[in-house]
Amino acid sequence: MSTSRREFIASVSAAVAVGMTQGGFHSAASAAEDKKLGVALVGLGSLSNHQLAPALQKTQHCRLSAIVTGTPEKERTWADRYQIDQRHVYNYDSFDKIAGDDSIDIVYIVLPNSMHAEYTIRAARAGKHVICEKPMANTSEECRQMIAACQEASRLLAIGYRCQFEPRHMRCMEFAREKSMGAIKMIEAGFGFKIGDPNQWRLKKSLAGGGALMDVGIYALQACRYLTGEEPLSIVAQETKTDAQKFAEVDESLTWTMRFPSGVLAYCSTSYNFNGLNRFRAFADNGWFGMDPAYSYNDNRLESSQGSTDLPQQDQFATEMDQFAKCIQDNRPSRVSGEEGLKDLIAIEAIYRSVQSQSLVELGSQKSA
Amino acid sequence: MSTSRREFIASVSAAVAVGMTQGGFHSAASAAEDKKLGVALVGLGSLSNHQLAPALQKTQHCRLSAIVTGTPEKERTWADRYQIDQRHVYNYDSFDKIAGDDSIDIVYIVLPNSMHAEYTIRAARAGKHVICEKPMANTSEECRQMIAACQEASRLLAIGYRCQFEPRHMRCMEFAREKSMGAIKMIEAGFGFKIGDPNQWRLKKSLAGGGALMDVGIYALQACRYLTGEEPLSIVAQETKTDAQKFAEVDESLTWTMRFPSGVLAYCSTSYNFNGLNRFRAFADNGWFGMDPAYSYNDNRLESSQGSTDLPQQDQFATEMDQFAKCIQDNRPSRVSGEEGLKDLIAIEAIYRSVQSQSLVELGSQKSA
Repeated sequence: MSTSRREFIASVSAAVAVGMTQGGFHSAASAAEDKKLGVALVGLGSLSNHQLAPALQKTQHCRLSAIVTGTPEKERTWADRYQIDQRHVYNYDSFDKIAGDDSIDIVYIVLPNSMHAEYTIRAARAGKHVICEKPMANTSEECRQMIAACQEASRLLAIGYRCQFEPRHMRCMEFAREKSMGAIKMIEAGFGFKIGDPNQWRLKKSLAGGGALMDVGIYALQACRYLTGEEPLSIVAQETKTDAQKFAEVDESLTWTMRFPSGVLAYCSTSYNFNGLNRFRAFADNGWFGMDPAYSYNDNRLESSQGSTDLPQQDQFATEMDQFAKCIQDNRPSRVSGEEGLKDLIAIEAIYRSVQSQSLVELGSQKSA
Repeated sequence: MSTSRREFIASVSAAVAVGMTQGGFHSAASAAEDKKLGVALVGLGSLSNHQLAPALQKTQHCRLSAIVTGTPEKERTWADRYQIDQRHVYNYDSFDKIAGDDSIDIVYIVLPNSMHAEYTIRAARAGKHVICEKPMANTSEECRQMIAACQEASRLLAIGYRCQFEPRHMRCMEFAREKSMGAIKMIEAGFGFKIGDPNQWRLKKSLAGGGALMDVGIYALQACRYLTGEEPLSIVAQETKTDAQKFAEVDESLTWTMRFPSGVLAYCSTSYNFNGLNRFRAFADNGWFGMDPAYSYNDNRLESSQGSTDLPQQDQFATEMDQFAKCIQDNRPSRVSGEEGLKDLIAIEAIYRSVQSQSLVELGSQKSA
């Protein structure tokens, strides 16, 4: 335990250091630039457009080198904006040709959830390391296939858990591991937002796998898991659906509670039906700490019974990608590995199972998952 | 609906007005003093000593007129301190003689939970109105007996839900009823503290009926019920016990979630094992509001997405008792009636049943309880 705790803190400190040295926009081509790992963004929707591509202008250890899109208009816009040669522009038919593109070290999967497994597996078979957005896949079975494919190809796999690279979340993980305010006894966590366009893929079960829980509830689940450093032993949940038409296929709002091996209880919530739920708090023996807002791209806020420390704002996506590039360079697994994504899917499936069965779901054997 | 909403707001405003006109310490005997209703405190433990007796020095419509104690030393101390004539000092053997004591209009039961039913019923039969501390009793069956006894004796019964007379709680009830920030979608509520002396009655099931949930979790439950104005349709819960010796007989920590008819989900927690959990927050369509701390005797804090309004600090117990005195004078039931206490016990029993059965408990027929 002591060793793993030191390792954890070292890795957190390293991540903070990486983040804090992020420079401005990308410099002229240089030896350093050449050593950066190339990232191909697969799927050029809102997240790629507004977060990942801008983040890749700030990264120290990787750079945007290729794009994959099914929308022809985006090919030219993106190629122009980011000076990407036509040779490094792919669509879903030509995707597998990335195998022969040495400019690509990392493939970042930013597709609807149902496509995560297929494209992660194809990327690994093309010899690329993979970052896959959360949730890792629609099912834990798909997660296992993704892990196996990356292992077979000897490629690293990371899940886009950006919060694990946010300085305030990392400080909270430190509080938890160091028991700065004593041992944690209880955790509250919730994340939701009011979803707009009723026709979007997030509301279709075949594409999204589920609703609010899969999309944003997963952040609350993650927080409970990385604060305790444990997997839940038992989960019990219930849902509400006030708009049966809009949420015909996926969950609208859910609450669930989890019991962890150390005795910690967590109580959690998620929703697609209102804004303003965006927080977690850990209650410990001698105080409490948490964040509100907790899971935003910017301007998150750390709170604790000991007052607040000002920590640097830094691009979570840039740090996430730089950290993964470092893992590749050092040939060591990411903290946000496929196994980490799988554990969330196991818990998510238990939550849905509890809603369906109206009973507590035990997860005693999860440790060996 | 519109009428009952107006009535609710009128009653809240009246309660605030009563509270805001509370004077300093008790004035010299006067005509006004004579018209005050006499209160007998039954059980002179910490709550009576530190909260109720001091509050009775501030009340406008009632006054401390008698005491009931099983501890002979307390008889003299209290009689001296509050100038109570020996004729108005009782013990548990002489309790029923209060029937002949015209100085007593109201009996305030401040005994261990298991004694609430017996002494409430005896007080009603002695012709006295009753305020009974929360939780109302150990079981819903006892609650029903208490309600029946008070009805038979044509006496009013109120439960000591002091928070319902706290200006910030009342403002939150207004926010909820007026939909000031839109309709409520989700509520989080939790209350706990680290319990000391392992030998106290609160840790004995026969005396307390239960643990953290009965004692403090009930505040979180109350908050959810008075914010929604509804009774839960379904409840699911789980518990944790990290100190099996100290909590051999009663619950240590619990989490539970509730679904209400309007579709609101509430997720809640309680514990006897740590300090600092003392809050609720309602998430509505256009904002959120809540309190943290929420359930303390003093210095509670109202928070909302619209900023904060400074409201007067006022003695919750004094307002609670004055409001009950006004109900008696006006011959109308209290907002915190026995029926209100019964509804909490029904929910509490469902929570315990869910923990035992490891499944969701439906409460569809509760409305007719």
